[in-house]
Amino acid sequence: MVVRSHAIEEALARYRAGWSLEQFFYTNQELFEYERRTWLARQWFLIGHLSEVPQTGSYIVRELLGESLIVVRTASDTVKGFFNVCRHRGSRICREDGTATAFTCPYHAWSYAIDGRLRSAAALVDGTDKADLGLKPVRLQETGGLLFCALDPKTPDLDAATFLPGLEYQGIPSARIAARRHYPTAANWKLVMENFHECYHCLPAHPQYSAVMGHVKRYAMDAAGPAADWNSEVDTWAQTWAIRDFPQAVVETAEADWSYTDITRFPIGGGRRTQSQDGQPVAPLMGRYPRYDGGVATFGVPPFSFFFLLNDHAVLFQFLPRATELTDVTVTWLVDAASAPDAVDVERMVWLWDVTTVQDKAIIEANAAGVRSRAYEPGPFTKLELWGVPLITQYIDALRAQ
Amino acid sequence: MVVRSHAIEEALARYRAGWSLEQFFYTNQELFEYERRTWLARQWFLIGHLSEVPQTGSYIVRELLGESLIVVRTASDTVKGFFNVCRHRGSRICREDGTATAFTCPYHAWSYAIDGRLRSAAALVDGTDKADLGLKPVRLQETGGLLFCALDPKTPDLDAATFLPGLEYQGIPSARIAARRHYPTAANWKLVMENFHECYHCLPAHPQYSAVMGHVKRYAMDAAGPAADWNSEVDTWAQTWAIRDFPQAVVETAEADWSYTDITRFPIGGGRRTQSQDGQPVAPLMGRYPRYDGGVATFGVPPFSFFFLLNDHAVLFQFLPRATELTDVTVTWLVDAASAPDAVDVERMVWLWDVTTVQDKAIIEANAAGVRSRAYEPGPFTKLELWGVPLITQYIDALRAQ
Amino acid sequence: MVVRSHAIEEALARYRAGWSLEQFFYTNQELFEYERRTWLARQWFLIGHLSEVPQTGSYIVRELLGESLIVVRTASDTVKGFFNVCRHRGSRICREDGTATAFTCPYHAWSYAIDGRLRSAAALVDGTDKADLGLKPVRLQETGGLLFCALDPKTPDLDAATFLPGLEYQGIPSARIAARRHYPTAANWKLVMENFHECYHCLPAHPQYSAVMGHVKRYAMDAAGPAADWNSEVDTWAQTWAIRDFPQAVVETAEADWSYTDITRFPIGGGRRTQSQDGQPVAPLMGRYPRYDGGVATFGVPPFSFFFLLNDHAVLFQFLPRATELTDVTVTWLVDAASAPDAVDVERMVWLWDVTTVQDKAIIEANAAGVRSRAYEPGPFTKLELWGVPLITQYIDALRAQ
Repeated sequence: MVVRSHAIEEALARYRAGWSLEQFFYTNQELFEYERRTWLARQWFLIGHLSEVPQTGSYIVRELLGESLIVVRTASDTVKGFFNVCRHRGSRICREDGTATAFTCPYHAWSYAIDGRLRSAAALVDGTDKADLGLKPVRLQETGGLLFCALDPKTPDLDAATFLPGLEYQGIPSARIAARRHYPTAANWKLVMENFHECYHCLPAHPQYSAVMGHVKRYAMDAAGPAADWNSEVDTWAQTWAIRDFPQAVVETAEADWSYTDITRFPIGGGRRTQSQDGQPVAPLMGRYPRYDGGVATFGVPPFSFFFLLNDHAVLFQFLPRATELTDVTVTWLVDAASAPDAVDVERMVWLWDVTTVQDKAIIEANAAGVRSRAYEPGPFTKLELWGVPLITQYIDALRAQ
Repeated sequence: MVVRSHAIEEALARYRAGWSLEQFFYTNQELFEYERRTWLARQWFLIGHLSEVPQTGSYIVRELLGESLIVVRTASDTVKGFFNVCRHRGSRICREDGTATAFTCPYHAWSYAIDGRLRSAAALVDGTDKADLGLKPVRLQETGGLLFCALDPKTPDLDAATFLPGLEYQGIPSARIAARRHYPTAANWKLVMENFHECYHCLPAHPQYSAVMGHVKRYAMDAAGPAADWNSEVDTWAQTWAIRDFPQAVVETAEADWSYTDITRFPIGGGRRTQSQDGQPVAPLMGRYPRYDGGVATFGVPPFSFFFLLNDHAVLFQFLPRATELTDVTVTWLVDAASAPDAVDVERMVWLWDVTTVQDKAIIEANAAGVRSRAYEPGPFTKLELWGVPLITQYIDALRAQ
Repeated sequence: MVVRSHAIEEALARYRAGWSLEQFFYTNQELFEYERRTWLARQWFLIGHLSEVPQTGSYIVRELLGESLIVVRTASDTVKGFFNVCRHRGSRICREDGTATAFTCPYHAWSYAIDGRLRSAAALVDGTDKADLGLKPVRLQETGGLLFCALDPKTPDLDAATFLPGLEYQGIPSARIAARRHYPTAANWKLVMENFHECYHCLPAHPQYSAVMGHVKRYAMDAAGPAADWNSEVDTWAQTWAIRDFPQAVVETAEADWSYTDITRFPIGGGRRTQSQDGQPVAPLMGRYPRYDGGVATFGVPPFSFFFLLNDHAVLFQFLPRATELTDVTVTWLVDAASAPDAVDVERMVWLWDVTTVQDKAIIEANAAGVRSRAYEPGPFTKLELWGVPLITQYIDALRAQ
């Protein structure tokens, strides 16, 4: 069991739902180290897409919570993950993505099969058991074409039942990566997630997003008129335009639908067919969509992986805590591997989320600067921010219980 | 009450007046954090000049002890200061100086009146009291055209009685800023202040200053002859040239006059009219000076703000501790706002203090490097350094008492 | 006595010889600080060569374990070392190498004779005893033309009896520096030394070194055939080519000869006359070598200073721990001062050790990255790495005993 300090206990005890967190949660380095060794290590993180390891021996090297991981396809239907640490004297083994028949450490040439077993090591002292010296595995689960990792070996299996049908409908397993961008954000992961889970900031901070997305009428405004307009637009869309066989999974109908645990679709709005600036398609239809209906499915694998699925492309968000005040935000755009031309117009496709994520990085970093102040104290969440509260509450409850 | 460690207690107990401080006082990070939360937070720091907030709604954003502050003119005769932290979720509100009718947070558009009251915030949960959610004020005091801040709300008022008449005589309230330069110095503030308060280093380290300033004959030399020459030059000046109505305020006549608490004037020396390289004026006369008499008034608001007042310009020194081993030294040159031409010859005006402060930055940083050594131990102050001792003694006494 | 934490005690208790160290030993900052104040302070470090202080008053400024030292020739046959810290207020005194008749502090002009005595200081308070205020000496020992320093004044004298004859035979006292290169390596010193003391990595990591040095057949391979070939090549060399009057000093004949405590010579191999790429000389013969015999003497002053002595040049390795995860590796190439032309072909001379040390820097830094992982655990040393074990064992034993 990882011991935690009195300061952590007290901060947990003082937590008040409905208010932003105390400075301690956003800036304390000891807390982050504790989280990294406990709660964060038990979360599933989106680490890549199946197309990144296309054949047996293909591998990628990715960082997760300060650990370097090797993710490798070991057979046609199996992907495994290992810590990128030689069992001899600890050297990094792989530096970059590649394809290999074995992993050979550059230091002393200890060589591992792609399934992690130590295959050869020169001059071992008699009695050394090679079977004890395989690469250390990391939890890895492939589902719907997505690769998830968790650092703690005791992490329970990821239950994909609700979201797998949606990923398959979208054609994620047979997609290819058209673009990936990184937005390292100098803030604690909680500030980043709180930002992601509310649209209260959409109107002041995201003019492009607010122009494109019809739902801001309901989720970014506290007014009956626009909300009624939006509900009416959604109803019309659902009755006339919407593709009906997408496997939605509305767990509950509460306001908490914004928490991305339900699998729902709604229209982008304004007659747009996809999330491009002019609303026109940027790639051929994906998966089983028979036509454009201008819908977007939003769900994810909380708390750190979320998806926006359009008729012609998919957007994956990875939130990867790296340090107390550093979170990598990685956005990946997928298109259909078979039908989408090699030269998708990437700039048109990434426009909305790129401009929006750049804006979020700036406002989150300004938030991080402010919460370091001696004058900062938790402020009240408004009606338009309460969707994000369960994320934090679950984190607090989990830490209190451990 | 802020708890302090045994190590701090012991170092305070070991302090020996007349000797440089132990390494601990110059390098210990825990001590700096303790100072920042206690003694430093109760000091008044020069934060700006009235001309920087010329009209209602004009504001400046300044950093003090790691805090970002908004200083704003709220009415013709009132300037207020606030922590630059939104009461909602803690974001920075203002990024740079400007003029505003309200402060609107870029994150969620909470909007504050320039007097700090929360004016509007969308979608507040019922029962939220806007009156509780105004910007947190910081102590701010305007005196003689200068703006001072203190972080601790319980800081006693600044008693301006002795120095205000001098600032008014100098015309500081109606001055304008002609130049400002920053000299971030990689050293603890005590090394910076010890340097500022003695002229023992003037001859080895400051050839230009020593050539210009006649008082080095007394304050940088331990010899009867030069001191007598200087006393004689001062006497002649006082009897023949000196303007007599400057409101001096000599609290005591002890050697401690170098501590900048007395308000005194003396000649630059050598017939110079101002502190320029050739001794000739760089700007029109300031304030109530009827003519050039070549004098300089030196006083300040100890322990971190000091002034050099010449017939034609004023030099303000701000010493702003930022981290254990980082102190910002900001120097501002003022001239008469009405009579001084827009294009003052800035290089001629800043010459002496710019070259001198660049030199001081280098020697203070070399001092900081040395005191980190295992070989460093406190050394004896000489006769020419004892003027700076009260500054440190007061600091030690205050910390011992708190 | 320097107090040490429970965590250090426990890690020392858990040490298991024959296995790489726990992460704690490579990454813990508190341990490094403890080492720096105790065991590291009592080690002798090669700090320079006599030719760097050619005449009375010549001095060099060097860093050792975070301390700046002045090393100065005080008379024709005496070199002394001082902490570069003024006894007045702690300033650095010297910034760079030079020649001086006195050391004058740039801050307040306290002036020290080159033997460290305080010579002059203005305005001392009555009763100040200048005899107490000389520069603090650091242990310095000159032997065979090499200058060694140790920070702790109680460090026992360096016993040069075994290695001095070899240095003199090589002509080190009358050599000059032809090249010096720095390889700052982002790793704890133990990872650097473990790397230096084994040749198990030579074949995978050092193709050039493996091509040049015949001994890799024995020290980098675990095979009877190549070892027998090598033994035979060494025997033939010893009987036919080897210069016989080099003062070898084989303390023991165990495998531990690789620990560099014995003074041994063996052939480079393959008929090479020196360690250049083509095997041909790069400089005139050094010292008392009557001719080229293609041998190399390898020994050192463990644990941080090692030499490779060729017929025509000498290579000195300095390992200088700077921080928990930073070690400076400095390599110096010496040639005969009298006979070697000013323009030695430096690139040909430095080729082997430059390319090899650049490779080592990369693999050691990859090792350092890996041992930071939660997945890292000590791995088993192989038969070809056991020569380095005594170095670590001696360190552990010393720390356990102190």
